[in-house]
Parts: sequence; C-alpha cells; structure tokens
Amino acid sequence: MNTYMTRRVALAKTLADSGVAIALFEDTEGRRDPSIRYFSGHPGDALLFISADGRSLLVPWDMNMAASMARVEDVVAYTDFNRSPFAAMAGALARLGIAAGSVVDLPSVTPYPMYVDYVEACPDYDFRCTDAGSTKAAAAMRAVKDADEIAIYRAVSAITDAAMDDIEAGVRSGRFETETDLALFIERFLRESGCESTGFETLAAGPSRSFGIHAFPAYTAAAFGTEGMSILDFGLSYKGYTSDVTMTFVKGDASGKRAEMIALVKKAHKDAIAACGPGVKSRDVALLVDAIFSEKGYAMPHGLGHGVGLEAHEAPAVRSRADNDWVLAPGHVITIEPGLYDPEAGGVRLEDDVLITEDGYEVLTHSRIVELG
Amino acid sequence: MNTYMTRRVALAKTLADSGVAIALFEDTEGRRDPSIRYFSGHPGDALLFISADGRSLLVPWDMNMAASMARVEDVVAYTDFNRSPFAAMAGALARLGIAAGSVVDLPSVTPYPMYVDYVEACPDYDFRCTDAGSTKAAAAMRAVKDADEIAIYRAVSAITDAAMDDIEAGVRSGRFETETDLALFIERFLRESGCESTGFETLAAGPSRSFGIHAFPAYTAAAFGTEGMSILDFGLSYKGYTSDVTMTFVKGDASGKRAEMIALVKKAHKDAIAACGPGVKSRDVALLVDAIFSEKGYAMPHGLGHGVGLEAHEAPAVRSRADNDWVLAPGHVITIEPGLYDPEAGGVRLEDDVLITEDGYEVLTHSRIVELG
Repeated sequence: MNTYMTRRVALAKTLADSGVAIALFEDTEGRRDPSIRYFSGHPGDALLFISADGRSLLVPWDMNMAASMARVEDVVAYTDFNRSPFAAMAGALARLGIAAGSVVDLPSVTPYPMYVDYVEACPDYDFRCTDAGSTKAAAAMRAVKDADEIAIYRAVSAITDAAMDDIEAGVRSGRFETETDLALFIERFLRESGCESTGFETLAAGPSRSFGIHAFPAYTAAAFGTEGMSILDFGLSYKGYTSDVTMTFVKGDASGKRAEMIALVKKAHKDAIAACGPGVKSRDVALLVDAIFSEKGYAMPHGLGHGVGLEAHEAPAVRSRADNDWVLAPGHVITIEPGLYDPEAGGVRLEDDVLITEDGYEVLTHSRIVELG
Repeated sequence: MNTYMTRRVALAKTLADSGVAIALFEDTEGRRDPSIRYFSGHPGDALLFISADGRSLLVPWDMNMAASMARVEDVVAYTDFNRSPFAAMAGALARLGIAAGSVVDLPSVTPYPMYVDYVEACPDYDFRCTDAGSTKAAAAMRAVKDADEIAIYRAVSAITDAAMDDIEAGVRSGRFETETDLALFIERFLRESGCESTGFETLAAGPSRSFGIHAFPAYTAAAFGTEGMSILDFGLSYKGYTSDVTMTFVKGDASGKRAEMIALVKKAHKDAIAACGPGVKSRDVALLVDAIFSEKGYAMPHGLGHGVGLEAHEAPAVRSRADNDWVLAPGHVITIEPGLYDPEAGGVRLEDDVLITEDGYEVLTHSRIVELG
C-alpha cells in the first residue's frame, strides 16, 4: 500500500466512525487545500472524493498532471463535468455508488451559496459542513508527520541551514546590501537545491521597517543589514513541505534597549525549545515565553509559533490564547519564533523549526541573531 | 471627497437600492479580497463594514498600517473584538446604529459554518449571503476602472513594456539562460521600478515544459530560450494593480507545425484586439478566436482572457463559455491571450492588456513572439 493510500484508509476510518459516507476535498483558486496533495500526490487544482470504505475519485483540471503525479483509484477530468463542482458531486456520488440518504461531508470553507447549490444538485443526500468534519480530521492527521514526511523535513531543514550560512556570509561580506538581494538569493538558491518555491513570500525588513510584525510590501529595494536591526523571515518548500526560519542581523549600537531585547528573545527561544516534548500543552510553552517578556515589561504582539507542513501555518497551534488546547505529540513539526518590536530600536525575532519526538524534541533548523559589529 | 469615499458612496447606493443596511468585506488568510483596499486604501488583513448611508468602519489587524494607509470614517482594532469576526460584527452593528431586523450582506465566500455563527452572534438581524450581493456589486464596480486606476494602468504598462525590452535583449544576448534567471530578473526589476510585487507567480517554461498551460512548479532551474518554444507569463503589481503579459521565444526550427501555430496565435491576438470595443460581447471576441483555431484543426485549452485589476483574474470574463454574458464597457482592462500547445512542438502564447475606451480600445502593453533564429 503506498503512502497516499495508507493516509486515505486512515481518513476513511474516521469518516466511517462519524457516520459520514463520503468526504469532499477541494483545491481551487481562492480555496487552496493541500490535503488533496497529502491524500493523492496530485499537487493542486482538483476535487478529491474519499469514501468511508476507502475508495477515491480525483477530478483534476489537468489530466496530464494527474497521469504523472496522482496515486488514486479513479480519475475523471473536470471538463467531463462541465467544470461544475455540483455536476462533479452528483457524478461522484453515482460513480462511487453512495446510497441516497447518506451523509456527505463538505470542506469547512465551503461558501454558504455553494452549500445551497450542492443541496439543490443532490437533494437526496444529507450534506454536512462544520468546523469539526473531515477538514479538521485531515488537519489533525497532517499535524503528525509520518516517516516519509520527517525525511522530507530533515532534507528541507539541511537546505535551509545551508541557505542561512550563505546568507550570513553574504551579509557580512557586503554581497547582500538590500532586502531584494536577499529575497532573490533565496529564490535562486532554493531552485538550485531542488526545492519547488518559497513556502511563503520572503519577508526581508531592513532597520527602517523591522519594527513591524509583517512588513508591507514583503521586501523592497531598501537597505538591509545597515545600522540597526534587520529581520529576514523565509521558508523553502521541498516536495510541498515548507521550512520557516527567521534570522536577525544587528549592526552598530547593540547596547541598551537593543541588548535587552536581543537577550530576552534568545532566552525565550532557548527556554521554549527546551520545554517542548510529547504530552506538553503547547499553550504552556507560549505562556512561559509571555512570562519571560512580561517580567521585563515587554509583550510579544504575535503567537509563539505554529505547525508547518504542506501549509506554512497548520496544526498544531502554539500560542497562549485560551482556546489553544493542543498537546504536543511525536511527529509534530512546529516553529518557535519569539520576537520583540520597538518603533525606535527596531525588531528582533529568532525562529527555528522543531520536531517533537518520542522522548523530547529535535531542533531541525539552526537560525541565529547575527551581530555584525 | 477622496477616491475611496466616492467608491463607498457608489456602493452604498447599490446597497440601499437592494434593501441592504450594511455590507461586510473580509480580507483574511485564505479569503483574500482586495475590495477592502479598493474601498478604503488599507492593503489587507482587515474587516470593512460599509453601511447603506455611506459610513464605514475598518477593523484592521495592524493599527499602524491603518493609521498610515486607511481613508475611512472610523477604525477599531481587531484585538478590541478579541480577534473574533462575530464579536466584530456585533460591535459594528451597535456602533453604526444598524436597526434590528435589518439586512446584513455577507461576502459570497463566507463559509457555511461562519454564516451559522454570524446568525448566532446577532440573532436579531437578517443575514444574506448570495453570489448576487455586495461581493458581485464590488466586482462590477472594480471592473470599470476610474481615472486614478487608468493612470495606474498606464504606469504599470510602461514599466512592463520596459521589462519586456530588457528581457528580449537579455535572452538574445545569452544573459538569461534559465527559467530562474528570468523570474529573478523580473523580481528585481519591478522593485527597482517602484512596483510592490509580481501580480502572480511568474510562469517561465522552457521548451521542455511549454506545452503545459500552467507549468508546475512555476519556474525551475531548467533552460529557457533553447531549441524549441519557451513561454514567459508574468505581471507586475503597481499600487496593487497588476499587469499580465505573455511572451514566447522561438529558437531553431520554426517551420512546419510551429510556424502554423505561431501564425495562428498572432492572427488570433490581432483580430481579437481589433474586435474589442464598448458594447461588444466579450464572448463574441472569444468565439472569433475559437473559429480561427478550429478552422485549422486546433483548439485552445483555456479562456481567451480576463479582466485584471487589484486581482490577476477579475471581472469581466473574456471566454466563449455560454454563461459569459459580459458586455465590454469603457474602463474595462482585459487580457487577450490566445495560445496553442502541442506535446511535440511546444507551446506558444501571446498576451497583452487592453483598455476599453469610449470609442474603441487602447493596447496598453506590447508583448511579442521573439524568433531567436
């Protein structure tokens, strides 16, 4: 049984357990869902039906791509359904022999008007669309990386570490002078290293912009690595899985408030990682960092981290909000990214990716705060 | 009255005419909607409420960004609503004094579970979520570019033309040898020209991949401009508005099937543009191209074009599908992008942006099929 089929069979079991006959996954412009890639190998622009008895039907836009990449039982071109998701739904229910009256689970992001149209197109079925359906089940499965995925994470982390070494050397030598220099170096490096793309738009913020959490635009022709603090936040996507790291570069005066912020972020990064492990509530790790900062009168304006995988932000959550009830488990890959920001001093953030193991954790990437002197 | 207020007042009139008291626009991860930028100047990550009497309330993630970019009557931080869209909705209805029983129009992409939660949070209001509501009204408004937007389109088109001149020279001279070379040249060029970003991921497909409509990954380390046909499809985003052009490069044998495909695409591009003008059904333009191709036994596997603006694909549609009932009007900016693809010969596509004027059309960009000899 190939990896994709193993995953579909596991999902099918959760469908059967919750009384669902068939689940739809959709990956279209405006509603991207890499769960289709996770369950079939097909990278995108498709509908995927998975039944509670473990069968699958892929409905792709591009049949050539499906022929080379999809590992599923059955494929029908979207054009055969006149590019209508409602016709595809009716066709899939018939083709897979789903009995009238059965429960059909829709993606949780299905727009209200589409829900109405599905019901109209297939009035004999019981459509369900909730935040607790197969979308959530897939997210929970994807949060726990299997052996294939952990191997991919070791590979993309090594490539990311190599990129960071070159970046540090290039900023030190003066080869990289602008935000654009860094972003374009990353684009070239990743492709020459066999990666697909960045995992998200590279965020390069020189001293004039580093106090913002998410600079807009993501990178510009502005100077990077000059007097003050510069932040570089990037991720490389390898076989669909993204790394996510943040480096900070400090030039010139690193005393006073800057020194305090840097020391606090380094301590938060170290202590948070050391607190990770199976059975640990991720909220407790985030609260630990909140306490480190608040003791010195600082506050972090964003969450401590998040899961990574086929999406740059996925389960598990790693934040101190009261609604976070995630418990870290072996196979989780999360970011730990404490940061502090000040309109005068600038911003400092240090981010690495951490794999939760059977008996603790493994730091996958090796980011750094670079003091340029 | 500033441009944004003018637009809000125009939308408010359509709300009042259709019995809607207030409309919500949402721009969040997974549900991007540049209508917020169109109506407020704020570039993203926010909720925007517009009432039928023309008042507005912006609920941004980043208050600093809102202070510098938003032109609205009222701003409340999303954190003040505990980052809950349902709390923000209840707060907005109270703050704007919307009477109980009024109709509240939600974005057409609102997920079914969120619709249910809005109703639960504000049970005294009549929530509406259809494909024909304020989302559609905003799309129709955005399709017709105003004077400010046309000025932006002239600027971004000139920058795009300059990029194409440099690209042609660089491929001819051998400076650009790979798909990555071209994609990264574009990234650097646009930032040095004052643009924000690409309008969409640059698609560079050398001869080994040009037969696909949308190559995956979008660009790689593979050779570009070598023996055969190579396609480069890119757009530059200036003040949020994207251009969209496609160049084809032909090297070596350009006889036989390749010659026929190139001639047909050039003719389709020329005849389609000549057919554009106010009052013309865009479907008729697309049918004209279908006829040019089918007469010689070819078929185009994608639509002829689409509107461009704050999104790379927006209204009006420019395709031959029977459901396309768009009539071209002054202010529309559309792409015309005929293409033919053959697994042996490769792909050829020629795409330009066209502004519909009071008495005809104006070709904004000047792409080309480059024969390298």
